[in-house]
Amino acid sequence: MLDGLFRPRSIAIIGASANPYSIGHIVIKNLVEYGFQGPIFPINPKASHIRSFRAYKSVLEVPDEIDLVNISIAAKYIPAVMEECGQKGVKFAIVHSAGFKEVGEEGLRREREMVEIAHKYGMRVYGPNCQGVQNSDPDISAYANFTFVPMKPGNISIIAQGGGMGELLKLHLHKVGLGHALYCSYGNECDLTMPEILDYYGQDDGTKLIMMQTETFKDPKAFLEVASRITPHKPILAIKSGRTAEGSIAVSSHTGSLIDQGAMTAAMYKKAGVVAFTDADEMIKAAIAFSQQDPPDGTRIGLITNTGGPGIAAVDEAINQGLSLARWSEAGKERLETSLYAEASTGNPVDVVATAGPDHYFAAVDTLLHEDGTDMVMVFFVTAPFVDLDGIADRIEEAAKSSTKPVVVVIETIDKWAPLIERIRKAGVPVYEFPEDGVRALAAMSRHRALAARPREDPPELSIDHAAAKAIVDRFAGRGEYLPQDEAFALLRAYGIEVPKLARVSSEDELAGAAKAVGFPCVLKVDSKAVIHKSDEGGVALNLTDSGALSAAFRQMQERFDGKDAHYIVQEQKAPGRELILGAMESPGLGSLVIFGLGGIFVEVMKDVAFSVAPLSRPEAQEMMREIQGFPLLEGTRGEEGVDLAALEDLLLRVSRLAADLPGIAEMDLNPVFAYASGVSAVDVRIKIA
Amino acid sequence: MLDGLFRPRSIAIIGASANPYSIGHIVIKNLVEYGFQGPIFPINPKASHIRSFRAYKSVLEVPDEIDLVNISIAAKYIPAVMEECGQKGVKFAIVHSAGFKEVGEEGLRREREMVEIAHKYGMRVYGPNCQGVQNSDPDISAYANFTFVPMKPGNISIIAQGGGMGELLKLHLHKVGLGHALYCSYGNECDLTMPEILDYYGQDDGTKLIMMQTETFKDPKAFLEVASRITPHKPILAIKSGRTAEGSIAVSSHTGSLIDQGAMTAAMYKKAGVVAFTDADEMIKAAIAFSQQDPPDGTRIGLITNTGGPGIAAVDEAINQGLSLARWSEAGKERLETSLYAEASTGNPVDVVATAGPDHYFAAVDTLLHEDGTDMVMVFFVTAPFVDLDGIADRIEEAAKSSTKPVVVVIETIDKWAPLIERIRKAGVPVYEFPEDGVRALAAMSRHRALAARPREDPPELSIDHAAAKAIVDRFAGRGEYLPQDEAFALLRAYGIEVPKLARVSSEDELAGAAKAVGFPCVLKVDSKAVIHKSDEGGVALNLTDSGALSAAFRQMQERFDGKDAHYIVQEQKAPGRELILGAMESPGLGSLVIFGLGGIFVEVMKDVAFSVAPLSRPEAQEMMREIQGFPLLEGTRGEEGVDLAALEDLLLRVSRLAADLPGIAEMDLNPVFAYASGVSAVDVRIKIA
Repeated sequence: MLDGLFRPRSIAIIGASANPYSIGHIVIKNLVEYGFQGPIFPINPKASHIRSFRAYKSVLEVPDEIDLVNISIAAKYIPAVMEECGQKGVKFAIVHSAGFKEVGEEGLRREREMVEIAHKYGMRVYGPNCQGVQNSDPDISAYANFTFVPMKPGNISIIAQGGGMGELLKLHLHKVGLGHALYCSYGNECDLTMPEILDYYGQDDGTKLIMMQTETFKDPKAFLEVASRITPHKPILAIKSGRTAEGSIAVSSHTGSLIDQGAMTAAMYKKAGVVAFTDADEMIKAAIAFSQQDPPDGTRIGLITNTGGPGIAAVDEAINQGLSLARWSEAGKERLETSLYAEASTGNPVDVVATAGPDHYFAAVDTLLHEDGTDMVMVFFVTAPFVDLDGIADRIEEAAKSSTKPVVVVIETIDKWAPLIERIRKAGVPVYEFPEDGVRALAAMSRHRALAARPREDPPELSIDHAAAKAIVDRFAGRGEYLPQDEAFALLRAYGIEVPKLARVSSEDELAGAAKAVGFPCVLKVDSKAVIHKSDEGGVALNLTDSGALSAAFRQMQERFDGKDAHYIVQEQKAPGRELILGAMESPGLGSLVIFGLGGIFVEVMKDVAFSVAPLSRPEAQEMMREIQGFPLLEGTRGEEGVDLAALEDLLLRVSRLAADLPGIAEMDLNPVFAYASGVSAVDVRIKIA
Repeated sequence: MLDGLFRPRSIAIIGASANPYSIGHIVIKNLVEYGFQGPIFPINPKASHIRSFRAYKSVLEVPDEIDLVNISIAAKYIPAVMEECGQKGVKFAIVHSAGFKEVGEEGLRREREMVEIAHKYGMRVYGPNCQGVQNSDPDISAYANFTFVPMKPGNISIIAQGGGMGELLKLHLHKVGLGHALYCSYGNECDLTMPEILDYYGQDDGTKLIMMQTETFKDPKAFLEVASRITPHKPILAIKSGRTAEGSIAVSSHTGSLIDQGAMTAAMYKKAGVVAFTDADEMIKAAIAFSQQDPPDGTRIGLITNTGGPGIAAVDEAINQGLSLARWSEAGKERLETSLYAEASTGNPVDVVATAGPDHYFAAVDTLLHEDGTDMVMVFFVTAPFVDLDGIADRIEEAAKSSTKPVVVVIETIDKWAPLIERIRKAGVPVYEFPEDGVRALAAMSRHRALAARPREDPPELSIDHAAAKAIVDRFAGRGEYLPQDEAFALLRAYGIEVPKLARVSSEDELAGAAKAVGFPCVLKVDSKAVIHKSDEGGVALNLTDSGALSAAFRQMQERFDGKDAHYIVQEQKAPGRELILGAMESPGLGSLVIFGLGGIFVEVMKDVAFSVAPLSRPEAQEMMREIQGFPLLEGTRGEEGVDLAALEDLLLRVSRLAADLPGIAEMDLNPVFAYASGVSAVDVRIKIA
């Protein structure tokens, strides 16, 4: 439990100073300004008091218990202070100070030493190189942070790695009059980890939703586990900074190299049901809606406006966001027709026209909210100078409250009518400035609902021979090499994946036996560590129809790959099918990511590829197939037969399971897989063992 | 010249009323409030005066000349009033009143009558069903509009079709302290057209850039012509409302049906060099940068921040927007190292760290602006509570002014420091709230510069036989039918497009002659109005190697298509190449759009398709090929040879020229075209004549 950190009964400030620009001073000022509900103990070896608080030379001198200390002294003095805190029985230490991991080896060593001391006493360290934490709960009111955005209670909890980004999120809630519940910016994460904090937020009753920003995941697996537990009952909105900085999807023949931190994050968010954003502003605007409204049950939006253009802009954005336009029942249409002006338009958007007054707006909002075919409503109004604006605001509110469906309002106006906006916001209805913003916020809520409602299943039981597979991986472990072809295929076979008949040959006299086992027509492939791109280097001979052709091809290759320690594979020739790529790659700290796409061109040139965290559940495998833009080709499109989706799903499940079960597999690349109207077949595979 | 509209020397208000909620009253109020520099004449048959202005029963009673009238009386009274205005010699009539085209036939008739009367007297009509116009030039100061956003001079001119959207654009400039030069929201466009107004804006010295919103293009060709003339010297920023409402790209086998108003608009914007937006907020934020800074010469951005996260967010967005990260020279790096704190990071972003003061910020901005490898700079700062913020603002300004490269600032702060933001804005440096906003604004300027710098060439001279082509089109004109295959190929041939050898046959005894002319292997195709999807219906036989196979195929098809008035084409069998689709389609009011993409799957499933306005110039054809995501396949990618880009370019030029020269061609669909390492070949074509 992190109560000592987020609900401290007492706080000591180590590095408290009379200098108003020092962190120690600012933290005390913030704690006082926002009325921290416990005692504050400045620690300073020289001062008798800081502000009006009696100062102590050391925590050991403090007469009462201390839950939390905020430390902002130079890094080199921290170990000694940590010892004292430990002896004192302090529960949590927030270390604001920099000079740790972020400065290199020396700092990392210092960080470890600090944590070691803390753990000796059962104390936990938060940070270092961080801003701090806040809890706006009036029973606590802890602004244990040296930043400047005013604190006020709210139901959004914020967890940010970077202080600047965390502050940005807090700031823009503040700008629309919203506060937050818990807040933290956790810096270096040397001891207390982000997933632990997230877990705490998940259990916090005052937290309706969580908004988060990360730069790197120290423990992706723990994050995935915690986030997956939270999202079914509490939305998590997240942005990952550095999606492109680490390198966007590299275009390469090798599917393995397609993975980067951006792809890993997206796959984790998907699996965990996190609502992902790429724009902080958009995430904040969505959080505002989540904070005040409940998510819609579907994707059908009803739009109301008193001027045409913004209504059209809302339609454009709704379609962009994957929402659909609601349609009204006959009764609904009739009510709109009888309640609105004759020149009003009663389609979607409903255009109540600029002269519409309070009753017109009420009728429109109320009608739409009570339509079964409407899941959410956005109301736009430009403050026309000839109508009763306060009345409109009141009646929109009134109608909005009569339903649990979410309603957002977009108001086009100048400062003069700012009180109108505040009035609606205070009534719990989010107000935006652009129609696109309102639509995006509703769409984000709809996305969350869809994610939370997904079937959550465990990966299915599969008939596999784990021991056989493990034996192969173990045999090659530690070499960092690709498996010989026959071993790679054997590994797949052990996991119930159908593979072509094949035989390994090293000399010409083995050809006859191999051909007999495999049959004609067959394929001859080179198998050598020195040959990476077999096809390009003349190491694949297709469609060999008899033993003469096979021998000729063999002799040619032997000559070509002389001195390359080459073996050869005689393999059943499979009929060509729809080409697919399936793969998996180790993702450090997480496990394995599964990769799926149509053939090379689609993956490499069109970047049409899906990533998921292994192992896959059945719904996840189904979702993954549908995620690529080329899915209609798999389903079958005009004039072209589809492929065996059930077989493909099974293949995805088995590949993902294999990658997850055997962490020794660093990369796995089934390329190509041929998919047929009935069945699928992996005709080539590369597997690298770590 | 539209001086009478935008620089009126006198204005009469027809429908002036003492009712403060009437349009006539509000227009007078607005004209007075913003100090219109000419006389105002209220026209009201009953009142002796409106506000303090003497009223007249009719414009004919006004003793002085009238340049402009604002009419807000009921539609049915307008014809009589128009007559009087004409007799009086009024130059422009703004008709605010509704009840015209937008209400149907009756209204359209009324609209035409009104324009007819006006034209009899050489008067022009603006609107109807519109807001009005504004000119903030202090010599004019005309707020001839009934809306509410305060007017102040600026260098952005706004042209909007919809009043609500126009007002939104104006409003958000106002919110950051910017005004506008000219403003208009033009409504029904019954007489005076948007391109005429745009042309006027283009010539207006007080207009540095134009921001526009449209819903429908009444005269796309005129818009294209005018916009193309303006953009080389004055940026046009544009948003089209209703991009998806009219139907997004329909997925269909028929490339023709891929065109919609959204695609047409995008193609026009591209050809004209207009900077296109899909988000009004983003366009406004870009306009703010255009208004105060000059566009960058390239795409290399330099970033400065005092906290990590927002710097990373800026990098992500820069890469998203197609910008690249600038690199510093050794000298630059050295200057950064010596001027900044030791813990600062001198890469890109430069992190000056939170404790950085005015001199640090100055050194960073000044260094980056003087780097040859930097085209633009974005400066982020969170208002840390321990530094001299005013000093930082002043020094950023000072550095920004030392260079013509664009600089934008992003400030993370609370209301308390709002004066800081105002101060920087007043100095002509745009300030945003999110790093993404700053980057997008700079990227939009960079896009404009690239568009303005494109080589502008006329479509090249091509060796064509226009007469032969025209003869074919004329022969089939008016039937709304597809050309017979041989005629369609002949049409292509007339425009210098290489087509396969082919011969049309109707009976078996013509086969031998056809085969002799075409040679073996050949293809037999059915040609019948009743057979739309030849391949799907068994109407294509490929790879016929001798006369026996040809005869057999012929007999089979004859049986299959019995009674379908079928003819047949014997055609040279072409070697398969990279499959492409080229097409053209009539775009009403504009001419023809050219369509280009890889084969069917890429167009229909992957939606990877480019549109351009015909005819193409050589640079436009080159740009169009590069526009599709699949271009690497044409250029050649790992292991695959590229295609003959010069031949493809020539084909695009000829197809576009053919479509443009012969408006009788409603649809043209070369599908597939085979592209080879040398040459291209259109192996099937469908052409519909209007």
